[in-house]
Amino acid sequence: MKTRAAVAWKAGAPLSIETVDLEGPKAGEVLVEVKATGICHTDQFTLSGADPEGLFPAILGHEGAGVVVDVGPGVTTLRRDDHVIPLYTPECRQCKFCLSRKTNLCQQIRSTQGRGLMPDATSRFSLDGRPILHYMGTSTFSNYIVVPEIALAKIRPDAPFDKVCYIGCGVTTGVGAVLFTAKVEAGANVVVFGLGGIGLNVIQGAKMVGAGKIIGVDINPAREAMARQFGMTDFINPKDVPNVVDTIVQLTDGGADYSFECVGNTTLMRQALECCHKGWGKSVIIGVAGAGQEISTRPFQLVTGREWKGSAFGGARGRTDVPKIVDWYMDGKIAIDPLITHTLKLEEINHGFELMERGESIRSVVVY
Amino acid sequence: MKTRAAVAWKAGAPLSIETVDLEGPKAGEVLVEVKATGICHTDQFTLSGADPEGLFPAILGHEGAGVVVDVGPGVTTLRRDDHVIPLYTPECRQCKFCLSRKTNLCQQIRSTQGRGLMPDATSRFSLDGRPILHYMGTSTFSNYIVVPEIALAKIRPDAPFDKVCYIGCGVTTGVGAVLFTAKVEAGANVVVFGLGGIGLNVIQGAKMVGAGKIIGVDINPAREAMARQFGMTDFINPKDVPNVVDTIVQLTDGGADYSFECVGNTTLMRQALECCHKGWGKSVIIGVAGAGQEISTRPFQLVTGREWKGSAFGGARGRTDVPKIVDWYMDGKIAIDPLITHTLKLEEINHGFELMERGESIRSVVVY
Repeated sequence: MKTRAAVAWKAGAPLSIETVDLEGPKAGEVLVEVKATGICHTDQFTLSGADPEGLFPAILGHEGAGVVVDVGPGVTTLRRDDHVIPLYTPECRQCKFCLSRKTNLCQQIRSTQGRGLMPDATSRFSLDGRPILHYMGTSTFSNYIVVPEIALAKIRPDAPFDKVCYIGCGVTTGVGAVLFTAKVEAGANVVVFGLGGIGLNVIQGAKMVGAGKIIGVDINPAREAMARQFGMTDFINPKDVPNVVDTIVQLTDGGADYSFECVGNTTLMRQALECCHKGWGKSVIIGVAGAGQEISTRPFQLVTGREWKGSAFGGARGRTDVPKIVDWYMDGKIAIDPLITHTLKLEEINHGFELMERGESIRSVVVY
Repeated sequence: MKTRAAVAWKAGAPLSIETVDLEGPKAGEVLVEVKATGICHTDQFTLSGADPEGLFPAILGHEGAGVVVDVGPGVTTLRRDDHVIPLYTPECRQCKFCLSRKTNLCQQIRSTQGRGLMPDATSRFSLDGRPILHYMGTSTFSNYIVVPEIALAKIRPDAPFDKVCYIGCGVTTGVGAVLFTAKVEAGANVVVFGLGGIGLNVIQGAKMVGAGKIIGVDINPAREAMARQFGMTDFINPKDVPNVVDTIVQLTDGGADYSFECVGNTTLMRQALECCHKGWGKSVIIGVAGAGQEISTRPFQLVTGREWKGSAFGGARGRTDVPKIVDWYMDGKIAIDPLITHTLKLEEINHGFELMERGESIRSVVVY
């Protein structure tokens, strides 16, 4: 079949709207009509050429929501008309990683996904016979996509696509880091470095579980208002204090119980660790640092009880946890609407990238 | 009263056997006759002058066992003739740290202990009217000591002092890091960097909880035999393989579930983290690095699920857990006797330091 899609022909160039060929689903695969997709910094990172693992030509996009149109042989858990969110972190429930019960990083299709291919090592996209690669196993910048069954979360049919698509990446990454990775408990003091989309979702995750102080750190004072709306109790602008770590330690009577780095800056990662409370403070890295950059600290920070960890896709198991997060949104436990600052048509997708680069949007969503 | 003690008059000089004055116990304090004490690398670190927090003159030693001789006013949990192990990490059960349930690092008397003083900010030791400082709140290189009640673990009376004194530091540090800090589960693969006294205790902790592979890493091939006796299943000499991390990843089919750094070398700390399994591997730093040294890694190591933490006194709560470890020794669940390679008189204590510096002892114990 044919589908409209925004194609990334090469690094550093704008996306190009094309009508491409899409092969139907093979065994264990599902054809999905994407109804809406967010535009995320990770798409930009790859499109810019900075991502050392970026491959072209490809159809980017990894934050979508849509409807099942057709299923391939052997698909048992989904059928036509089911509403779904594609998962760049699948959940096969059979690999060593899924069965460990210790991680959400299912590795069942990791190697082919990393090469922009379906599990049979081929692409379903092409144009004039020339293959176009998939991206993160999702390629939600295409109106129709083929995705493995294990990479689709079935969600309730009354959830609006143009909002819950954000659960496909940003919401889950932030809220999940609080609930699934850090397991923040009621009353705990939380510090969030970076008040962009991920940081705001960390804040509302912390609010949802009843955190005590929720301290936001950002050099942009314009971020304060919305962060307070999402549950931030205290704001620190590093430009206004002599030492961010000391300020946090004083404000929390000893340090943060949990801290989250949502920027991808290795200096902030160190501050996020060192502002944690002696004895038990846990620091979670969410942001993606530039290629080759390293984090450092004195080992004494760890020997005296701090813990350094990271979170990918919020520690969420896609098929198990994503439908719950959709429920939380529908129940009003978390907010998404104020975070979606722009809604665009597919033809306007490059404008969405510009808004993100200029810091004018929190999230732009393309509605097909 | 008078007591014999090995006094450290200044950094870098041998200890000097003296008869010093000891004031009796004040409120909340206990007079203990030390029956035996181990000589630990930490004593050497301080005596050498390398410890930036080292203070002189002082009576070193922190790995003892003895008997209660007298108690000061208000002491309710100990009485004359009780057998005890002094605790450089006390357990008051009342401070924010004890009540957090998240750490063993009781801070009740931290500030005075760090200055070589009792909680009332004075010393009980003196010679010719000149005060001599306490060390780590214990000073077990003195035959008699005064210690706060909260810094004494009451142990069973049939445990031999010249063996269980080692539980005052080394045994608990190693075994505890496995049980209390890492919480290693049966079947897990464990890697131990450094097969000295701490490493051997990590190994027997791992064996005790039913770990799967227990891999030891040391550049000294002479360490292999005793490590195997303690439960090591595989030995890697970094001099014999091109890449230690790769070798461990292959041997464990993906990486260690838990790793422990028992040397204090920041390069090994990084290797210990990076040899851990994607998704869930936890690395625990036990060794104490030199002043100012830092650990580094790419944040990707953490974002893909590895966790970096540290352990002090094995994460053990002194008054709660140390008596249990004594029971485990008495029940044959852990071994101590083969680790105590030398038994000395107090007058021979400097020889004990020499044996340690030359790597000829695992543990030397002074018996009073």
